[in-house]
Amino acid sequence: MSDIDLILDHIEANLPASIDKFVQFLAFPSVSSQPEGREGIAACAEWLRSELAGLGLETQLITTDGHPLVMGKSWQRDGYLRVLLYGHYDVQPVEPLDAWRTPPFEPACRDEDGLTRIYARGASDSKSQVWSVLEALRAWKETQGGFPVNVTVLLEGEEETGSPSLPAFIDTHGDELACDVAFISDSDMWSPTRPAITTRLKGLLHEKITIVAPNGDLHSGHYGNVAANPVRILAKILASIHDDEGRVTIDGFYDGVRPVPARLREQWRSLDLKEALAGVSVCGAVQEGGHGAIELMWSRPGIDFNGVVGGNTGPGERSVLPSSATARLSFRLVDEQKPERIRSLFRRFVETRLPDGCHVEFDGAGGSSAVSVNEASRFIAATARALDAEWPEPTLIKGTGGAVPLVGFLTDRLGIDCIVTGFILADDAIHAPNERYDVERLRKGIRSWARILSELESDRRQ
Amino acid sequence: MSDIDLILDHIEANLPASIDKFVQFLAFPSVSSQPEGREGIAACAEWLRSELAGLGLETQLITTDGHPLVMGKSWQRDGYLRVLLYGHYDVQPVEPLDAWRTPPFEPACRDEDGLTRIYARGASDSKSQVWSVLEALRAWKETQGGFPVNVTVLLEGEEETGSPSLPAFIDTHGDELACDVAFISDSDMWSPTRPAITTRLKGLLHEKITIVAPNGDLHSGHYGNVAANPVRILAKILASIHDDEGRVTIDGFYDGVRPVPARLREQWRSLDLKEALAGVSVCGAVQEGGHGAIELMWSRPGIDFNGVVGGNTGPGERSVLPSSATARLSFRLVDEQKPERIRSLFRRFVETRLPDGCHVEFDGAGGSSAVSVNEASRFIAATARALDAEWPEPTLIKGTGGAVPLVGFLTDRLGIDCIVTGFILADDAIHAPNERYDVERLRKGIRSWARILSELESDRRQ
Repeated sequence: MSDIDLILDHIEANLPASIDKFVQFLAFPSVSSQPEGREGIAACAEWLRSELAGLGLETQLITTDGHPLVMGKSWQRDGYLRVLLYGHYDVQPVEPLDAWRTPPFEPACRDEDGLTRIYARGASDSKSQVWSVLEALRAWKETQGGFPVNVTVLLEGEEETGSPSLPAFIDTHGDELACDVAFISDSDMWSPTRPAITTRLKGLLHEKITIVAPNGDLHSGHYGNVAANPVRILAKILASIHDDEGRVTIDGFYDGVRPVPARLREQWRSLDLKEALAGVSVCGAVQEGGHGAIELMWSRPGIDFNGVVGGNTGPGERSVLPSSATARLSFRLVDEQKPERIRSLFRRFVETRLPDGCHVEFDGAGGSSAVSVNEASRFIAATARALDAEWPEPTLIKGTGGAVPLVGFLTDRLGIDCIVTGFILADDAIHAPNERYDVERLRKGIRSWARILSELESDRRQ
Repeated sequence: MSDIDLILDHIEANLPASIDKFVQFLAFPSVSSQPEGREGIAACAEWLRSELAGLGLETQLITTDGHPLVMGKSWQRDGYLRVLLYGHYDVQPVEPLDAWRTPPFEPACRDEDGLTRIYARGASDSKSQVWSVLEALRAWKETQGGFPVNVTVLLEGEEETGSPSLPAFIDTHGDELACDVAFISDSDMWSPTRPAITTRLKGLLHEKITIVAPNGDLHSGHYGNVAANPVRILAKILASIHDDEGRVTIDGFYDGVRPVPARLREQWRSLDLKEALAGVSVCGAVQEGGHGAIELMWSRPGIDFNGVVGGNTGPGERSVLPSSATARLSFRLVDEQKPERIRSLFRRFVETRLPDGCHVEFDGAGGSSAVSVNEASRFIAATARALDAEWPEPTLIKGTGGAVPLVGFLTDRLGIDCIVTGFILADDAIHAPNERYDVERLRKGIRSWARILSELESDRRQ
């Protein structure tokens, strides 16, 4: 057996170098959902490939219709476990840019609240999660000469856009991904002291709707009471999606949604909501039906409005009837809700609410179903042991409203157990301006992954 | 008596020069509602002052807290009518800029549909209206050696922002504006062949509301079903402002609104709606109560949504719960509706619909009451005779949903008859991208104003 203490000591000694390289990683503007991100994505992928090569992995840069996948393999130990380690290097857009205290791709360290925080887009979601895995591999390599399992590292550049290229890649390269267990390093903790493994992940689809009136912009003084106003039509449609209790009114939306098992529900109800929502005020919350907040976050489906724009958004008054108005919505799905069916129910719902003469343009993206991971897997137990050894409180088995498309593909297409874990916290401001991560969590995250690899060492292919 | 034919011939001969100078006038980016317009406004005001001086008027550039007023006087004929001629040289913002076929302040001529059209912001509203008056004065000056009445020209740079500096100016300079009749050159025709005088003008106020949640932007996957979403709250509030019949639901909103006199209502009902809405499709119109479209446009109050913005407005998907959402509304008021009362009713309406913990920021602008001009004025009759002589169809007495704040000030504060006329058409795209005006209307507009001055020549102070 390898000496985990030696490995952990090496991590501590190497921490300044780990941080330096992490900062380099953060500086790539790898925004996957905007055309101007293409160059930053490509440079980041090449940098990662070279990092994987430096760990002694056999690397490939796999081009797709979208952004490249970076793969690295060390596959030398017959009879040993085959472990897939997945992360993503693409990040969310940074708008609104003027809300950032420091530029999103110029990582800035600030000492605050007893922590050293690094501010950058991707600092938490998900470059810290990727980097923790890579630095744990480095510690194993540099102290033990290699890894305790056969390793495939897969780093994706399209997670934030719903992983459009992954299904085709899995269909054509399924053999290369064959493994006994997959680890998805892209999830959150319950609290700063309590780690978690996420076993229930919601499905996700995006819809963009644009209501278009038959005219160009009109003078609202002249035609205000008469001509169709797309902002008014859009507001009526958006307002009709939820009833006063927050329940979605789209006919058939809840088909296929199952009640949460009583055991799980009781366990979740015993959790302290304040911890689940650390740093987040939920005043003004709309709580659907009789479901508690944790149930709503982890296991109830929902529709969110992510953005809206139409007409005059400039600084001054303009008496204009806008010719169009746009909203962006995201749908979080659970259990047996089918994304394409939900999409078509929603589109019909909008179309039947349009006044004569106006039309609507739809632009959909994503479309993944919810996934549940087998909670009896021995790999969940092994991971929990590793995390319990590193953190002050015991590992929680939880759900999430966030989506990781790969988990669905691996579970449904390849039948592989996916262990979803990570060290993101509620107040990391992921997907928002001033995203951040602290150095202490980076350190304990690297140590956690080193411990997980150690727990797997004694396991063998069965 | 002067020879009107001689004057009209001079207008024809001088037309190419008139158009050249009109194009110079259009090139000033005189946007009043945005800070970056200040320079264009100042240059435009100085240019106009010099033009008025060239017409032999005694000129003043009057500074205000906002943008300057340009005044010119020729006040030499005792016993002759004192006539105030008002126009505005400021223009609406140009956004969205990418919707313009040619830049808004680089006037472009295009031959289309048998017309030569000039495209520029302000081409119709209202630089063409100002320029028609000035060129009519020039024709009088150059053929007759002077004007047939005592003239005060007042050109404003803040009409598009609700004329905030005018009340103080009228209070302090009321004497200089003393006149027997005021002409407001800033209104529209009924159709390309039928001129109009507008006797009913709606009041106007603007409100900007921003719904703010207690948190910054949040990940919509994690908090989507739980945390307050300002876009959702805003949509609910906007949607609740009108009922399914288009009636405003704000308690007390219709207080002070009088029925249209039966005679006027009948006359308006006999008009062909297609002409009123030339070039504008009203499919999808919401018609409040049993009121016809013309009544809605000219004499019913209303609330319009001019713009909305919140959350992700960028090109890609972002799973964000926005921290705030903003809407801009304008209110068109009639009869005895009081702007400050309506503003406070509206703000209370919004506040009572806010969930706990969220707050709203209000930013109001404008605030003018509706105005009715005495339809029995002899100056209306004189103006109608002049217009009837120039255009193929008889002059229509009409209302408008547009506001001209000065009319209220002159009518209410100084008791002066205001004759509101002009040659704007429905498809001029005023307040919208690709605003335009045709050379033929510029020609007939100049001729119309020359004829109006001629009709006033025989009138004397009474």
